Amino acid sequence: MKVAILGASGVVGREMLRTLERRSFPVDELVPLASPRSEGVSLPFAGGEVTVQAVSDDAFDGVDVALFSPGATVSRQWAPRAVEAGAVVVDNSSAFRMDPEVPLVIPEINGDALEGHRGIVANPNCTAITALMAVAPLHRLAGLRRMIVSSYQSVSGMGLKGIDELIEQVEKLSGNEQDLLAPDPTSLPAGEVFGRTIAYNVVPRAGSFDPDGWTTEETKLVEESRKILGLPKLDVAATVVRVPVIAGHSVSVLLELSRPVAVDEARGALRASKGIEIVDDPHSDSFPTPIDAAGRDEVLVGRIRQGDRPDSLMLFASGDNLRKGAALNAVQIAERLTL
Amino acid sequence: MKVAILGASGVVGREMLRTLERRSFPVDELVPLASPRSEGVSLPFAGGEVTVQAVSDDAFDGVDVALFSPGATVSRQWAPRAVEAGAVVVDNSSAFRMDPEVPLVIPEINGDALEGHRGIVANPNCTAITALMAVAPLHRLAGLRRMIVSSYQSVSGMGLKGIDELIEQVEKLSGNEQDLLAPDPTSLPAGEVFGRTIAYNVVPRAGSFDPDGWTTEETKLVEESRKILGLPKLDVAATVVRVPVIAGHSVSVLLELSRPVAVDEARGALRASKGIEIVDDPHSDSFPTPIDAAGRDEVLVGRIRQGDRPDSLMLFASGDNLRKGAALNAVQIAERLTL
Repeated sequence: MKVAILGASGVVGREMLRTLERRSFPVDELVPLASPRSEGVSLPFAGGEVTVQAVSDDAFDGVDVALFSPGATVSRQWAPRAVEAGAVVVDNSSAFRMDPEVPLVIPEINGDALEGHRGIVANPNCTAITALMAVAPLHRLAGLRRMIVSSYQSVSGMGLKGIDELIEQVEKLSGNEQDLLAPDPTSLPAGEVFGRTIAYNVVPRAGSFDPDGWTTEETKLVEESRKILGLPKLDVAATVVRVPVIAGHSVSVLLELSRPVAVDEARGALRASKGIEIVDDPHSDSFPTPIDAAGRDEVLVGRIRQGDRPDSLMLFASGDNLRKGAALNAVQIAERLTL
Repeated sequence: MKVAILGASGVVGREMLRTLERRSFPVDELVPLASPRSEGVSLPFAGGEVTVQAVSDDAFDGVDVALFSPGATVSRQWAPRAVEAGAVVVDNSSAFRMDPEVPLVIPEINGDALEGHRGIVANPNCTAITALMAVAPLHRLAGLRRMIVSSYQSVSGMGLKGIDELIEQVEKLSGNEQDLLAPDPTSLPAGEVFGRTIAYNVVPRAGSFDPDGWTTEETKLVEESRKILGLPKLDVAATVVRVPVIAGHSVSVLLELSRPVAVDEARGALRASKGIEIVDDPHSDSFPTPIDAAGRDEVLVGRIRQGDRPDSLMLFASGDNLRKGAALNAVQIAERLTL
């Protein structure tokens, strides 16, 4: 198969290359594409190297599958061109996710939605994937009525520049961390990527604000959860927070179900589900953390317990935002579409 | 007044000294006490220095106010002795908080509960204080029915050793942060204080687990909120998470009230309350972060918005866990008791 990757030199693009390799996706020819800025960059692939080409009008000729991971504007520009050239596009941006004609898919949850696609399939938001991998089995078990999520999102969600900004700020503060007990605001490293100091801080904003005070990232979590679960009126409350973690997004979730569910029953439903691993033994002090989830395919689920009411359940999940949250889910979709 | 501080050399004890100074508490004589291990440590106070003494049977003779910030076991041992000697004890540990004869007080919220104390007053858990400073005004406005909290707690909540562990781990990982994209679990720094790597990670556990999978820190948040607000049956769900932040605890909160409350009405009630500062303007990208709250007396409240249902409100608050979360609240109680 001829596979193109748009945004190949980015942190998700590189992970897509590694994922195709790891999963032995039948690639006959790989076409790594990016903006002209990244033209000529060498990337390791299949024991050799591939060289990034600037995306162009004829870049998608003969391509079977195009994995997209640029920004939404670039996706909007090039996805129709790739479809025209005969490729099926799996797009990791937010450009097409809420388009009623575009399936928004987590294969373990709603793989059937791929049927009848018109050339573009959307890959969900990384935090939505992490949360829903844990929530969907419980919805199937007992009917989801409400989902309340607070997130702990890593800096790699903003790409390589997000990682660099955190590391640079940590270096800048090195030796003076104790000053952060009562910091001088004028001496804090300013953030270009996160708009605030992200080292030794948490930032409760991702994306931009709408007039109601919700951020775009929070609204994505609401809308995408409804679409993926097929529950257009599901009550979802979300607070999205960036934390100084390199890789691995986490979510603290409270669910309301249509009936009380015992913790053991919930664990059983989760254990029977693919793509997740239960890490949840209070007696051995075991629970998910993002550093444990980084570099792994499975979403880790733990802290499963009864909430404040009989019909509420709580859990904490950590997933690799670059793998299941992005590259892995996209390649899984490509597998379902073509193999 | 003769003022004793037990646990004077700890991170909260030191903050208590600074707070007495800053607020010009009328100290005639200061008695800094600690375990024999810290005997002889010099601490700056009132332009000079004071020397830590080992706590002993006669250490509280003539003491008017004793501010306690040791562990619960030490508090249980020495608080009755201090009361016997005629002192009033403000205890920052969890030892007496749920004792029905001991007032558990945040002065801005339930200062009246101080009346009728029997010598011991308890200072609430630092995360409970941060959350309730934002929640209590909304409860007064419209009747609180439910509170769902996820926390982002700094390492200084575990004292100086917590701060040291984070800084040491960050140093150990320095230069290899990119490896955290797919970490080798055997090479991660193990944590003694947090039981896990805390650098570039978040740890969804504080305290120990009960058989239901709740942590002691989460149960404190439930029980203390009920006691302070005078709502013994309040539904509270809490998930407590440690984050790699030096100082400043944050909470993401969803409230259910007994009637729908518009965001502007909520802001008005918060604006009229003492001890908090609203930092909440989406248009100027303004919201609370823990690094902004560190070294400040006020709890910062923002991200105030309608939740997923008409009767739900959401907010994010950050407070200095060593100040309002501990030393400042204790000194405010001492002021109400004696001035």
